[in-house]
Amino acid sequence: MYELLKKIFPICRSITGKGVRETLNILKEECQLLNIYEIPSGTPVFDWTIPDEWNINDAWIKNSKGEKIIDFKENNLHVVGYSTPIHKKVNLEELLKIVYTLPEQPDAIPYITSYYKERYGFCMSENQKKALVDDEYEIFIDSELKPGSLTYGEIIIPGQSTKEIFLSTYICHPSMANNECSGPVVAINLAKWLMNRQNKYTYRIVFAPETIGSITYLSKNLKVLKENVIAGYILTCVGDNRCYSYLASRYGNTLADRAALSILKNYAPDYVHYSYLDRGSDERQYCSPGVDLPVCSVMRTKYGVYPEYHTSLDNLDLVNEEGLRGTFELYKKIITAIENNAKYKINTPCEPQLGKRGLYPTLSTKQSGKQVRNLMNVITYLDGTNDIFDISEITKVSVDEVIEHIQKLKSAGLLEEVQ
Amino acid sequence: MYELLKKIFPICRSITGKGVRETLNILKEECQLLNIYEIPSGTPVFDWTIPDEWNINDAWIKNSKGEKIIDFKENNLHVVGYSTPIHKKVNLEELLKIVYTLPEQPDAIPYITSYYKERYGFCMSENQKKALVDDEYEIFIDSELKPGSLTYGEIIIPGQSTKEIFLSTYICHPSMANNECSGPVVAINLAKWLMNRQNKYTYRIVFAPETIGSITYLSKNLKVLKENVIAGYILTCVGDNRCYSYLASRYGNTLADRAALSILKNYAPDYVHYSYLDRGSDERQYCSPGVDLPVCSVMRTKYGVYPEYHTSLDNLDLVNEEGLRGTFELYKKIITAIENNAKYKINTPCEPQLGKRGLYPTLSTKQSGKQVRNLMNVITYLDGTNDIFDISEITKVSVDEVIEHIQKLKSAGLLEEVQ
Amino acid sequence: MYELLKKIFPICRSITGKGVRETLNILKEECQLLNIYEIPSGTPVFDWTIPDEWNINDAWIKNSKGEKIIDFKENNLHVVGYSTPIHKKVNLEELLKIVYTLPEQPDAIPYITSYYKERYGFCMSENQKKALVDDEYEIFIDSELKPGSLTYGEIIIPGQSTKEIFLSTYICHPSMANNECSGPVVAINLAKWLMNRQNKYTYRIVFAPETIGSITYLSKNLKVLKENVIAGYILTCVGDNRCYSYLASRYGNTLADRAALSILKNYAPDYVHYSYLDRGSDERQYCSPGVDLPVCSVMRTKYGVYPEYHTSLDNLDLVNEEGLRGTFELYKKIITAIENNAKYKINTPCEPQLGKRGLYPTLSTKQSGKQVRNLMNVITYLDGTNDIFDISEITKVSVDEVIEHIQKLKSAGLLEEVQ
Repeated sequence: MYELLKKIFPICRSITGKGVRETLNILKEECQLLNIYEIPSGTPVFDWTIPDEWNINDAWIKNSKGEKIIDFKENNLHVVGYSTPIHKKVNLEELLKIVYTLPEQPDAIPYITSYYKERYGFCMSENQKKALVDDEYEIFIDSELKPGSLTYGEIIIPGQSTKEIFLSTYICHPSMANNECSGPVVAINLAKWLMNRQNKYTYRIVFAPETIGSITYLSKNLKVLKENVIAGYILTCVGDNRCYSYLASRYGNTLADRAALSILKNYAPDYVHYSYLDRGSDERQYCSPGVDLPVCSVMRTKYGVYPEYHTSLDNLDLVNEEGLRGTFELYKKIITAIENNAKYKINTPCEPQLGKRGLYPTLSTKQSGKQVRNLMNVITYLDGTNDIFDISEITKVSVDEVIEHIQKLKSAGLLEEVQ
Repeated sequence: MYELLKKIFPICRSITGKGVRETLNILKEECQLLNIYEIPSGTPVFDWTIPDEWNINDAWIKNSKGEKIIDFKENNLHVVGYSTPIHKKVNLEELLKIVYTLPEQPDAIPYITSYYKERYGFCMSENQKKALVDDEYEIFIDSELKPGSLTYGEIIIPGQSTKEIFLSTYICHPSMANNECSGPVVAINLAKWLMNRQNKYTYRIVFAPETIGSITYLSKNLKVLKENVIAGYILTCVGDNRCYSYLASRYGNTLADRAALSILKNYAPDYVHYSYLDRGSDERQYCSPGVDLPVCSVMRTKYGVYPEYHTSLDNLDLVNEEGLRGTFELYKKIITAIENNAKYKINTPCEPQLGKRGLYPTLSTKQSGKQVRNLMNVITYLDGTNDIFDISEITKVSVDEVIEHIQKLKSAGLLEEVQ
Repeated sequence: MYELLKKIFPICRSITGKGVRETLNILKEECQLLNIYEIPSGTPVFDWTIPDEWNINDAWIKNSKGEKIIDFKENNLHVVGYSTPIHKKVNLEELLKIVYTLPEQPDAIPYITSYYKERYGFCMSENQKKALVDDEYEIFIDSELKPGSLTYGEIIIPGQSTKEIFLSTYICHPSMANNECSGPVVAINLAKWLMNRQNKYTYRIVFAPETIGSITYLSKNLKVLKENVIAGYILTCVGDNRCYSYLASRYGNTLADRAALSILKNYAPDYVHYSYLDRGSDERQYCSPGVDLPVCSVMRTKYGVYPEYHTSLDNLDLVNEEGLRGTFELYKKIITAIENNAKYKINTPCEPQLGKRGLYPTLSTKQSGKQVRNLMNVITYLDGTNDIFDISEITKVSVDEVIEHIQKLKSAGLLEEVQ
């Protein structure tokens, strides 16, 4: 996964433009099921309008000696996203008005955008800024902002049921590794894994620019999403190998939340629990009133929390294969749990006689009760009112083990599914 | 307000009699909307009966030298409330049988009443009692207990809706300042404030003797109160400038409770929270089974808790303008919040585009998210299921600020009210 | 009670056989209402089958000198329950394969059974095992395992209502005092107490072997139990005079749980609270899905928790009259509370005038409020929605005192019962 991430990292993405398309085309090489959609600038999408398309070829600042002291080709964060074209000479005072830095992180170039108000600007490190002298500077941005389209990708993997599990990630950030090259990389690998399985549910995986992209996607697909999605997750900041984080849905009580929490409590008990008030990604749209999809996030270190966030320090050193792989495996567990989720009822009153089925030790000793206690606890709450996450919560048996016990009991003919 | 309080303080009030009428007449001078009602002695009111009317002109104890050692005209707490008339000579032993003191507060005269059993008695400080010598004493109470009426006052301030907010205070205590000259003073000032506003709700403000007065009022008005009152408060002990206190309704879950708690948490976070089990005022009637009005209390230091309670130490030094004013302002905030309370739903799926309405910063930086976070959090819970107190509780945004955000969003045409 | 316990202690009981019958016959001498039922081996009972009947006359191990080194007649725990007959000579190595001990309790003989797989074995203390030398041993078990029947007892004490309170205990343990001679002894004494009362509810008291016995009983009586039982308790480990314990029903929210907790909180506030996950007695059947009876346990020290459990140390020294009597009295309180439980509504709006009924002090002082506070708190929650356990929980007044107040109010004509 890290190799793929390295491949898409250098591309200058924004919420529209060639960078998005280039990224989607690389992802399509990984999974041919990826369909790419273009929505024209000016299209109304709910309360919003698709903006003009922005593309940039080059940008720099030269000093009076003609030396490039800032070069877009070295780091595409140097230009404020959606900057309008400019080419002129400015003095130091004028230059400083359009320069953005992070004084508290003097080595980091900040990531700044201005999608909905036309302006131009440069980002640099505080140290670069301090090195500027009283001089005449030539500033140059070779960009283009004009009608075009917004681009997104979608993968549909049909399952036995039309009910869907929904994954969403975004493809609008320039060269930052964790936020956001990691999300698309883990998402495309989940797609590849899901393609080769027999799935109960249909899977819908969306690669869209943040905010305007998810709004656009929702405006095209709201009805079908509301009818079918039973659980969804946003994949963002999933590549650093630090802690795991969970960010709740609007009320924190959906199947997506319950499945995520059940897995995290067992496999990453040190995960950080964030409320919906701490949100900052596309759950802002997916969980909004009127949309109300059951969507939450399982991340590595959350956006806004780690010091490298939205700076040039969110680079290829911050993420690694182990970090990506860990999140990938966790999502596989979450998906597997949802695929196996159901409510069952034991079909005989009283405890079934497990002994005659080889499921119970034959010699009753002071200790033997403990050996089958987990199984017995699962059985007693298989009363048709609890799903596997309820049972795991009540019995403190991991959801994986709950599924195992259910498989054994189903094989023994002891369970009936309750709708 | 303190001036008005000083004016009514000296009057000898009881649950019936001239003191009540005199007090109500002074209050009527402040607010001409005050109507005064007389209910004859002997009238059955639910399980009770209006008692005979009690009036007192004078009372004293003289020693054998003819010196007044206790004088009703100095402090009307010296006579047990509803004492029957007496004039006789008694020795020390006989005198002590009808003398009430507070040994633990040797300087304080206690406040004692005997409404429903005929007796007479004197109250004095423990120190006064200790100074009594073996002597012949002349005791004299010039009181009258005979059929008359029970008196209460009522202000109705009509609003756009017949739904009501209900305020109740009492006017049956003799010369004690916090409990209870403060309640009528704050209540009449709230009436004056409400008269000069356009109100959504109708306001009903009742000035009645405690217990028998509220029972009488309820017996006359129960049906209309049950139909219309959406929230109510008892104003008692609202004049000392110490802490605030909240005493819950019977189950603590009414709109009155929610509004009070929402305001207290923001403006008086050190308030003391009392359960309904700690009650001792007219919520005993208003919240009783069969009455079930949504009524709670916001007070200063609660009756029964402060050391001066029900003694001569509850005097004009205990209360002050700042204390009265603070409670007045707090009730204004509570009322304003209820007036503005509603459930709204944002009328577009996904987040509205605040930028085009000037409600969102145009430059996205690492910090800009925080600037509009409160607004965004309010928006996301404006889903038609939460009123403003729910939203304040969930988002930790003060209810005042919630109201401000709602006003902005309503002006922008983004909200619809949900019934 | 201790005398009766001493009488049944020496009998060798198992889940079937003469020991069960002998025990039931002794209990029947105490209460002639006890009916004894026999269910033939091979009868299917839900997922189970009544096993063959097991009886044992004698068993021993002799050394090569012909000395009995283990003798069933000294302690019937020496033989693994349901051991098949055997008579042969074995060397030390062979002997050790069929010997069970408790290395951590070197003086204790463990209690071991093998009901559902045919085997034979001996139990001895770890010290006895260590004393075994290389020798030729003669082992002898004179037992019989063949079709017969399973035996249980049932007492029905009719009440005014067909609704039932259900008590269950077991009679399948050999010579262990707390677990389980104490349960049958307390149960039979409760039966004797109930026989001599006028009861609102019908009482059903079952004496059955654990697990297979309760399953058998349920298979014969499930319909009537589900229709009628409003609360039930399992009496086990009720004879040691140590702490009390409570073990919840499956969801911990039945009338049985509420009544038990209400009494325990007042009379044994140091009781230990166990979750249903800690279960190990017949609630495993009574609370199982499809049976769903409102059954929990109030015990002394819980089975599995005390060190003497399931060993020869659970002997006559472990239990005593005080221990049995305490549990007996506690169950009487629980039963009395349920018998008196109802929902009432005060039949007048506002507080009733208690003074005219002699229920309120006539002189109002700073202290007098406290004297009737409990009564007033009970009254205010007598609103038709709360039963006596709710009221006790809300008001912190003991359920006994709640009942007393209700009796007074009923006598005064102030209450109506709400169905």
